[in-house]
Amino acid sequence: MTNSRIVLDQSRIPTHWYNVIADMPNPPAPVLAPDGKPITPDQLMMIFPESLIMQEVSGERWIPIPEPVREIYKLWRPTPLQRAYRLEQALGTPARIWYKNESVSPAGSHKPNSAVPQAYYNKQAGIKRLSTETGAGQWGSAISLAGQMFGLEVMVYMVRISYDQKPFRRSMMQTWGARVLPSPTNTTRSGSKILAADPESPGSLGIAISEAVEVAAENPDTNYTLGSVLNHVLLHQTVIGLEAKEQMQIAGDYPDVIFAPCGGGSNFGGIAFPFLADKAAGKNIRLVAVEPTSCPTLTRGHYAYDFGDSVGLTPMLRMYTLGHDFVPPGIHAGGLRYHGDSALVSQLYHEKIIEAVAVDQIATFEAGVLFAKTEGIIPAPESNHAIRACIDEALRCKASGEPKCLLFNLSGHGHFDMAAYDRFFRGELEDYAYPQEAIEAALEHLPKVALG
Amino acid sequence: MTNSRIVLDQSRIPTHWYNVIADMPNPPAPVLAPDGKPITPDQLMMIFPESLIMQEVSGERWIPIPEPVREIYKLWRPTPLQRAYRLEQALGTPARIWYKNESVSPAGSHKPNSAVPQAYYNKQAGIKRLSTETGAGQWGSAISLAGQMFGLEVMVYMVRISYDQKPFRRSMMQTWGARVLPSPTNTTRSGSKILAADPESPGSLGIAISEAVEVAAENPDTNYTLGSVLNHVLLHQTVIGLEAKEQMQIAGDYPDVIFAPCGGGSNFGGIAFPFLADKAAGKNIRLVAVEPTSCPTLTRGHYAYDFGDSVGLTPMLRMYTLGHDFVPPGIHAGGLRYHGDSALVSQLYHEKIIEAVAVDQIATFEAGVLFAKTEGIIPAPESNHAIRACIDEALRCKASGEPKCLLFNLSGHGHFDMAAYDRFFRGELEDYAYPQEAIEAALEHLPKVALG
Repeated sequence: MTNSRIVLDQSRIPTHWYNVIADMPNPPAPVLAPDGKPITPDQLMMIFPESLIMQEVSGERWIPIPEPVREIYKLWRPTPLQRAYRLEQALGTPARIWYKNESVSPAGSHKPNSAVPQAYYNKQAGIKRLSTETGAGQWGSAISLAGQMFGLEVMVYMVRISYDQKPFRRSMMQTWGARVLPSPTNTTRSGSKILAADPESPGSLGIAISEAVEVAAENPDTNYTLGSVLNHVLLHQTVIGLEAKEQMQIAGDYPDVIFAPCGGGSNFGGIAFPFLADKAAGKNIRLVAVEPTSCPTLTRGHYAYDFGDSVGLTPMLRMYTLGHDFVPPGIHAGGLRYHGDSALVSQLYHEKIIEAVAVDQIATFEAGVLFAKTEGIIPAPESNHAIRACIDEALRCKASGEPKCLLFNLSGHGHFDMAAYDRFFRGELEDYAYPQEAIEAALEHLPKVALG
Repeated sequence: MTNSRIVLDQSRIPTHWYNVIADMPNPPAPVLAPDGKPITPDQLMMIFPESLIMQEVSGERWIPIPEPVREIYKLWRPTPLQRAYRLEQALGTPARIWYKNESVSPAGSHKPNSAVPQAYYNKQAGIKRLSTETGAGQWGSAISLAGQMFGLEVMVYMVRISYDQKPFRRSMMQTWGARVLPSPTNTTRSGSKILAADPESPGSLGIAISEAVEVAAENPDTNYTLGSVLNHVLLHQTVIGLEAKEQMQIAGDYPDVIFAPCGGGSNFGGIAFPFLADKAAGKNIRLVAVEPTSCPTLTRGHYAYDFGDSVGLTPMLRMYTLGHDFVPPGIHAGGLRYHGDSALVSQLYHEKIIEAVAVDQIATFEAGVLFAKTEGIIPAPESNHAIRACIDEALRCKASGEPKCLLFNLSGHGHFDMAAYDRFFRGELEDYAYPQEAIEAALEHLPKVALG
């Protein structure tokens, strides 16, 4: 009997997160305050605990994982690494396809990997309440779970289109004790302003971020949490790649190419960064961020300073962006509908250390259904992007006869996304190429920052 | 770091199923045809393959699991055994609480453990298509997954009201390629007859069974599959208990009491029967079937011959029953709303080898939410019954100071049951004590069979 799943004992949960900054050829571009000057830790302390700010700017290669965090990780980690034999057979490819299964967490995605330490550090800092935004609902679920584990209140601003399309994600957050609000709301100045201009606004991640940040900035007992983009979030997610490296070693294999969905970058950074350390040491490995053609941040955006939210309350990051006032089309991979991207992922892409590819929505669902029919698990729409890119590579291997080793991150399951699958089966999904005019127009809305 | 999860390598997937009949003090009561005579294998071969009929009547202690079935089991088995440390702490109990996590299967419950071998044996017998009925959708999902894995068409008659109210279970089945029909349909005589009388019929499980059986009986290339009650279904489910025994041994522990939800009996038989072998050999262990007070088959039903369906088309089983014309109240544990019970479970209960307890609906949701808040996973409403009974025992241990070892079967997750959790949070759920008059009245509707 061939072993198709590599499981690790709980004692193998990593003891340290891996900080990719230590292996980058150039230091990260500074984060700028709205006045254009590098931001100081003091300015961030209104909404973040000091421990997370220190992680945000750290250059240390290894950051210790606190034991109480590892104790909660134990509820589902280490996650399995699985060989997709049945998918390989269906494709008739000589490629070996592996996937890291992050869908086994109680929240159903990789997101709790960062939610748990964020809740822990805030609890340590004496914070009583966490605010956050959520798009697809995966991050909101994760922080609701994590807040519960450390006895913190949680307030989730959920993008209205997702709130309406995914009522059961809301129920899930409520089961873990969180309060969930459809954003934009009238509970904040940012939300009220948007609603005044467009009472039917479907919302966006950018708007929801503005609301959650505003609440945190104005309440001393409340801090803000973010599920992607920031350095410390990607840091926490490296448990995925660290475990996967050990599991690949046990399997006696090593990936030629890694694929992960990329919205804000936590999914991609989580699995890819620990392998980037090998690449920095000379190993031949390709790391591919996969994004939707409808939100082509890396593949078609501008590499520039921009705000993290849509209103302009946050500091400015140098990143690939479609413009902070970008309003994404209503595609079903809600977790990938973000105007910007992680500064670390952006810089690594700009320096050609990692790659990016954009895929069409319908093709991603075709890939997800083939995966479900062969491997059983029904993937999240975000994960379908990685599966699509991985299948395309496996088919290229079939054409060329190359027996490559491919690895992708199955970032979550699709149990709360079945309405999207329904639309796919009914032929109602559309592909949407983001218009070139909008990309050009975004240039004019970017904040004016002199690049040093 | 304490190890709270026992994982097994895929090579430890059991090679044989355990047949409890070999360790029962008395042979099983015979299954009777509608004419009151013991049924012959020939009568079953119109809708089942010979291999499954042989398993149904076998007295062999160990039945080999075919390698192709073990290959599919590998997609999620062995499932983890987890120690609920955080639940124990929340209860302040000296009891040790373990749970076997069957929610990790692609269909989200233990049901594929039998769906996969049923699909396999039918494929071996040259069958092209499987028919079945489904209410809540767990069995329908499992057989859709299993049929896909062996290239069989699957036709699921889904009770119309569930089809309309639970669209996401339907989408899940369709993702795995099944054809899902809202029952009653015009594709069968049984369905057409109902529709002629009432074109707006919401359907019922009884009607759906009639349709699925009719299609199987009339098409030589089509067989019928059932997700519980029958001996071979419980046999297949023993992989749960067999793995759990090995995992408990690795943990250096052994259960004093085992709890499992009990509707048709596949969940309970799956985890409890392999431990019953130890009990037969003199070990001191309690095996507790947990049912709803609204459907108290074991605790308040009659031990008598009755039909398996509501119309009276199936053979008669000697079992605990509330009467085949029982109309279940609308509780949310759809998998536990069955008038009868497995003949094996019934006989073991009648002979006082196993125990049974009934719990109220609201108390089961309270238990499920406490479990979600401590252990993370949101359980299926069926599983909440086992959790409730286990928590009650743990609280008795707290009162008495006894450090008992408790084990329950987490049969499934609640990702497709969030509407029920919503109703619980809104205070809309009700407890329902099944009326004594209805229990007494049922006696008059039971088929008249002389007991030998």
